[in-house]
Amino acid sequence: MSLLVVGSIALDTVKTPVEEHGDLLGGSASYAASAASYFSPVQLVGVVGSDFPQAEFDFWKSRKIDSAGVQRVEGKTFRWSGEYAWDLNTRETRSVALNVFENFQPELPKSYRQTDFALLANIAPALQSHVLKQMEKPRFVVADTMDLWIETTRAELDALLPHVDLLILNDSEAREMTKETSLIKAGRGIRKMGPRYVAIKKGEHGALLFGENEFFSCGAYPLEDIHDPTGAGDTFAGGMAGYLAGNVKKVTFTDLRKAMIYGSVLASFCVEAFSLERLRNLTMDEINERYETFKLMSQFEVPET
Amino acid sequence: MSLLVVGSIALDTVKTPVEEHGDLLGGSASYAASAASYFSPVQLVGVVGSDFPQAEFDFWKSRKIDSAGVQRVEGKTFRWSGEYAWDLNTRETRSVALNVFENFQPELPKSYRQTDFALLANIAPALQSHVLKQMEKPRFVVADTMDLWIETTRAELDALLPHVDLLILNDSEAREMTKETSLIKAGRGIRKMGPRYVAIKKGEHGALLFGENEFFSCGAYPLEDIHDPTGAGDTFAGGMAGYLAGNVKKVTFTDLRKAMIYGSVLASFCVEAFSLERLRNLTMDEINERYETFKLMSQFEVPET
Repeated sequence: MSLLVVGSIALDTVKTPVEEHGDLLGGSASYAASAASYFSPVQLVGVVGSDFPQAEFDFWKSRKIDSAGVQRVEGKTFRWSGEYAWDLNTRETRSVALNVFENFQPELPKSYRQTDFALLANIAPALQSHVLKQMEKPRFVVADTMDLWIETTRAELDALLPHVDLLILNDSEAREMTKETSLIKAGRGIRKMGPRYVAIKKGEHGALLFGENEFFSCGAYPLEDIHDPTGAGDTFAGGMAGYLAGNVKKVTFTDLRKAMIYGSVLASFCVEAFSLERLRNLTMDEINERYETFKLMSQFEVPET
Repeated sequence: MSLLVVGSIALDTVKTPVEEHGDLLGGSASYAASAASYFSPVQLVGVVGSDFPQAEFDFWKSRKIDSAGVQRVEGKTFRWSGEYAWDLNTRETRSVALNVFENFQPELPKSYRQTDFALLANIAPALQSHVLKQMEKPRFVVADTMDLWIETTRAELDALLPHVDLLILNDSEAREMTKETSLIKAGRGIRKMGPRYVAIKKGEHGALLFGENEFFSCGAYPLEDIHDPTGAGDTFAGGMAGYLAGNVKKVTFTDLRKAMIYGSVLASFCVEAFSLERLRNLTMDEINERYETFKLMSQFEVPET
């Protein structure tokens, strides 16, 4: 089944201690859609300016990402520039120019409205709700969020949460949202705000998944070198939601466990290269090989090899 | 089979934001021996002063912890006092009085020298080596260490490492020891310094295990409340080494996976109460129940329940 993905589409400039690249395809929806496209057809919703490269539309087409929901507006595409510290763990935003994104009102093409699975990638909660209202009866809604919305538009976020099946956020955001130090308390606390399931991303430490009386914990894929952490969280969300849309009819906690591993696998590829370069032409063999590595690295009752 | 445990034995005063308690049994060997005793008989090596309570000798006896190797010396027992910050993640040492520990020269009783498994719990590397030299032919040697020794007695630590089968240390210590940001690089790098296996403890984020071309990652037991983190790392090491000594003849990576889970289980009990109170009278049912929880929380290819 298809997955509707709404979020930001941007042109990024990223500086790490080693390299700097500009005009890279970025934004939460770009990462999420690319990751999801390895598991299911994607219906993309977003906005770009007149400077946006046609080549990226061609890329989407090649990956079965439907761009009928991407508005092309006169003006410049949303631009973001960031710089990472030496350990790649902290980053500073150097500049943000919302441009055509400033007045973005997502409108779903008719062909998107009956879609069963939706990923509301990281954008303002009001826009996430606006998209959700246009959908007829989505079966499973995944939403990602970030500190900015927790701090500045909390009421809108709170209003969205009861309509979300799976909320994805990172560890510091989960702590901020609940004022709890313990991530276990935080995850359980967020479930009480509405989402049936909560996934907490912990970067190099993996991720946690909370359901009703259910809990899953996975590590991160053991990478020695990271080139650009940008978009890893969006990619994780895209991999999770894409796996569910492509493989599951009625989502159970067991499905979510596997989905979280696939999200982690896709995120591990994402950070191996700048922008989403590594997500442009993965093979299912590459993806499944890492999935198998996750099995090997997390099982402790296995026959001796 | 028996496990020899050498390390510090102390009387601690611990202050958390909620409580403060004094004259608590503490020290790396006390925690490690208590944890290990749930899996195998323990031969304890250490030193105490004339103020050390007889009741603790009785406790050891009740748990099949042989204290023939514990020297009783005229003077005061090693005392340590620490205070935890509000989130229990950082602590400050308020005072340290080495007392009888200052001139400690561990001497193994004859009955200890042919023991097959040894845990060199956290003490100065020179003392760890001194104990190892008195052992006839240990089959598997586990050593724990800390930032203090990495910073002040690096040469002695480096001299010990080739004689260690499994080195256990925490994430910041692994980074410090290798000057690597990536824990994956750090773990692999430390293996090149001598130990066949390396375990990196990450507190609430679980632990990593490195072997030759082998890797294991586990989360932490999902605790909502922590009362006193003191000794969690020593307990982890004791649980790991105790499981191996009690259950394994020739240690494989698969055994180490399970041992790491048991170490994590014991550490989860440790932090639930002050000092090692929770480790005094656990049942195997309690331990195995948490072991099962680890299975449930880490497997992602399981039949739907």
